[in-house]
Amino acid sequence: MTDSQAADWWATAVSRIEPNVIELRGIPVADLIGDIGFGEMTWLMLRGSRPTPDQLRLFEAALIAGVDHGPHAPSIAVARMAATCGVGLNNAMASAINVLGDSHGGAGEQCVALLSEIVTRDVPAEVVVAEWRARGIRYLPGFGHRFHTRDPRRDPLIDLTSAAAGTGVVTGDHLRAALAVEEALHPVPMNIDGATAVIYAELGFPAPLARGLFVLSRSVGILAHAWEETGQGRRNKGPIPPSIRPTYLGPG
Amino acid sequence: MTDSQAADWWATAVSRIEPNVIELRGIPVADLIGDIGFGEMTWLMLRGSRPTPDQLRLFEAALIAGVDHGPHAPSIAVARMAATCGVGLNNAMASAINVLGDSHGGAGEQCVALLSEIVTRDVPAEVVVAEWRARGIRYLPGFGHRFHTRDPRRDPLIDLTSAAAGTGVVTGDHLRAALAVEEALHPVPMNIDGATAVIYAELGFPAPLARGLFVLSRSVGILAHAWEETGQGRRNKGPIPPSIRPTYLGPG
Amino acid sequence: MTDSQAADWWATAVSRIEPNVIELRGIPVADLIGDIGFGEMTWLMLRGSRPTPDQLRLFEAALIAGVDHGPHAPSIAVARMAATCGVGLNNAMASAINVLGDSHGGAGEQCVALLSEIVTRDVPAEVVVAEWRARGIRYLPGFGHRFHTRDPRRDPLIDLTSAAAGTGVVTGDHLRAALAVEEALHPVPMNIDGATAVIYAELGFPAPLARGLFVLSRSVGILAHAWEETGQGRRNKGPIPPSIRPTYLGPG
Amino acid sequence: MTDSQAADWWATAVSRIEPNVIELRGIPVADLIGDIGFGEMTWLMLRGSRPTPDQLRLFEAALIAGVDHGPHAPSIAVARMAATCGVGLNNAMASAINVLGDSHGGAGEQCVALLSEIVTRDVPAEVVVAEWRARGIRYLPGFGHRFHTRDPRRDPLIDLTSAAAGTGVVTGDHLRAALAVEEALHPVPMNIDGATAVIYAELGFPAPLARGLFVLSRSVGILAHAWEETGQGRRNKGPIPPSIRPTYLGPG
Repeated sequence: MTDSQAADWWATAVSRIEPNVIELRGIPVADLIGDIGFGEMTWLMLRGSRPTPDQLRLFEAALIAGVDHGPHAPSIAVARMAATCGVGLNNAMASAINVLGDSHGGAGEQCVALLSEIVTRDVPAEVVVAEWRARGIRYLPGFGHRFHTRDPRRDPLIDLTSAAAGTGVVTGDHLRAALAVEEALHPVPMNIDGATAVIYAELGFPAPLARGLFVLSRSVGILAHAWEETGQGRRNKGPIPPSIRPTYLGPG
Repeated sequence: MTDSQAADWWATAVSRIEPNVIELRGIPVADLIGDIGFGEMTWLMLRGSRPTPDQLRLFEAALIAGVDHGPHAPSIAVARMAATCGVGLNNAMASAINVLGDSHGGAGEQCVALLSEIVTRDVPAEVVVAEWRARGIRYLPGFGHRFHTRDPRRDPLIDLTSAAAGTGVVTGDHLRAALAVEEALHPVPMNIDGATAVIYAELGFPAPLARGLFVLSRSVGILAHAWEETGQGRRNKGPIPPSIRPTYLGPG
Repeated sequence: MTDSQAADWWATAVSRIEPNVIELRGIPVADLIGDIGFGEMTWLMLRGSRPTPDQLRLFEAALIAGVDHGPHAPSIAVARMAATCGVGLNNAMASAINVLGDSHGGAGEQCVALLSEIVTRDVPAEVVVAEWRARGIRYLPGFGHRFHTRDPRRDPLIDLTSAAAGTGVVTGDHLRAALAVEEALHPVPMNIDGATAVIYAELGFPAPLARGLFVLSRSVGILAHAWEETGQGRRNKGPIPPSIRPTYLGPG
Repeated sequence: MTDSQAADWWATAVSRIEPNVIELRGIPVADLIGDIGFGEMTWLMLRGSRPTPDQLRLFEAALIAGVDHGPHAPSIAVARMAATCGVGLNNAMASAINVLGDSHGGAGEQCVALLSEIVTRDVPAEVVVAEWRARGIRYLPGFGHRFHTRDPRRDPLIDLTSAAAGTGVVTGDHLRAALAVEEALHPVPMNIDGATAVIYAELGFPAPLARGLFVLSRSVGILAHAWEETGQGRRNKGPIPPSIRPTYLGPG
């Protein structure tokens, strides 16, 4: 019976779609519309149940912190250039979020892994840091910023997490691990990938979702920049003005 | 002075990024973290100012309505297959949102254009519908669904918009245009692209942002499905089980 | 019987894949390996049969002409930035080819449509040009270049096509249409999208494949640049050096 | 002087683009058009000089071997679904090549690394295989196929490489390493990623380019399938026919 094979091949617990029926995580969509915010809906879809208000506040703090870092960020620059090339905003956004790789936003995933390893093995952070470095990892994920000596997003995110740990909303284990890594790396500070990784890990999200959530977050800034660019009237915008010619290093 | 040329080439009003300074739409990021939700942040980034609570409620209703339509939707299926191919979640999400084109989610953009044309020209909807059809447009954007005879998202979205029009939150002009088109196309009903286009248009978003906002919305479901798929352990998941062979139509 | 439904859903004449069998356009892959070049294979896969040597020469001329236009081209710049963000070369290439939209490479598709309209309707090119302009099309696809007053790829491509028309390899109809448009637009010259559109149209490729073939062509340059960039050691390369700050246009 | 900073930021040896000048790897584009095939051009762009005819034959054999593996391959299925969603062929191709990740085509990159490690360390293949397995790598890259017990592309590619080693075109070092791995994994055979990795490594391409070259190769099949799909008239094609419903695993 291959019909059930094909049906099973696409089995899912996320949603149930039948003619005139849409249930998301077991809840009819009509019961959600008008009743739930966008941040809470994101949690529901990923976790299968709703967050508490305290969890939600922390979650949304992380989501809004990463929305934008200006045109110097490759994700933002790609979005703006793409938007001038005659493609839809969905395509411009896709080209942009696609670059949120291991060293650009995707570092949050690795940072959750780092913090979780420290928490799980229950060894001093500097031991784990030393081991990661011995494996050839030059930049510890979630730490260091080429631009900010002190990332202005670090303190408010860490303060909110500390407060949440103080009231038992989260355990604070991953927070302590992150602060210990930061001390071990001093004066290299925690960056946005690190601070949001702390929150996502404290809230129980597995490592790969730290990357996925950063993508959702940055998508907002990507859309804002892509849209602004379309209003500036350029076509096929290159990275530098046409009057500046790339230095040629080749033969001839 | 080419330094100012390069600086101007990337001019933006969205954000100001200086060493240790991040301002989004003129507001220091530290003032936003912990103070603003994800839906409201999305509005702020796109519009430059905060919504009223009534505007926000309508906006988030549209955002959450489109998050998922199960594995039959190409965007969801692509996300799930991509997640099995050894790429990051950012890449899986990019491949998926990239397909939200003119006939899949992107239709919201065209529907805003349709509704705006009716509102602006102030002619009966059936006149505009007839003109669009005369231009060879077979499927009016935002109307008709191959699966639902009555999309369960239509009524709650339209009801919320009607209520908002009744209290002056929105004018109701685009709502009336959409209902008139629906009547002209009877029994073809409004679909999710149409109902969210009504809301985005009523809230003053230009047409291309209806597509962009649908991308943000659907990204949540894309992430949820991509993540669920990674837990099911397949590698290089094809669209049908290996035991079913595509019909061969070629020579030989 | 839903197994045949699922099998038919994925019906194809392009290839036959059975256990231990791979046939491409009806030819066992083992008979192709070592026997056919990459350009000829491309033709075979798209057309279902092999080109003549004269057709192949013209086809490959178009394919190689578009491979690269340096870092000013958004496609090339995106590839290079993506390659510094910790993603695979496949991802860097995807972000890059994704921007080959209606105004960047994708214009070839529209130019084939323009030339085909002139050929089919058999009216003077300036009539069709005037009609396209009356529809609000400011830049005729395939003509004009912001950088070159005379694109160095135009003459060799047009000369080859003229020679092929002279020996009956192609009819020359689309070539004549393109030259007539160029004369009507004087002094705006044919660009790479236009010159390759002539060749693809003369060889019988439908309009959308002019875009698809340009993608294949440019993919080569995209890969070369992405790879060179990975050797230069940058991480998260932005569009301008960090020392140059984007001009801020916003409030505050 | 920031103009030279911005110029240096985009320095390249791949191409020189000046008004009315296009040089690719030091050669005026007009000298290439009509003189060089698409496969040879690919080599030139990546290596900076032309291949010998013997090198080119081997190179093109690898390029054509990977063009297509039918709709069961996620890359092909994604291309076909994307092509029905109202996006350009460039977008459909981008979504598709984006999934050529570590376990789908991207495995060639890892296989070159595996073979190079064996060649460089000069230890028996089974030692390296055992070490990779001890690191938790379950599927050795380039070996094993879920569908073919004997991949029909393996023998002709390996035979060509053996012949080339016999005449001194290549050293045969990576070929011997691959055959030794295959023996160690018996009866798991070499697959297309493995056989092409052998050729790319023998020809001196670094590991990441094995992935990049597979992308170029598969792009041809991706385009052929996307294009065929557009002729079959579906809109928003899902992975299975609408009559088959995904099995629901969730609550409610």
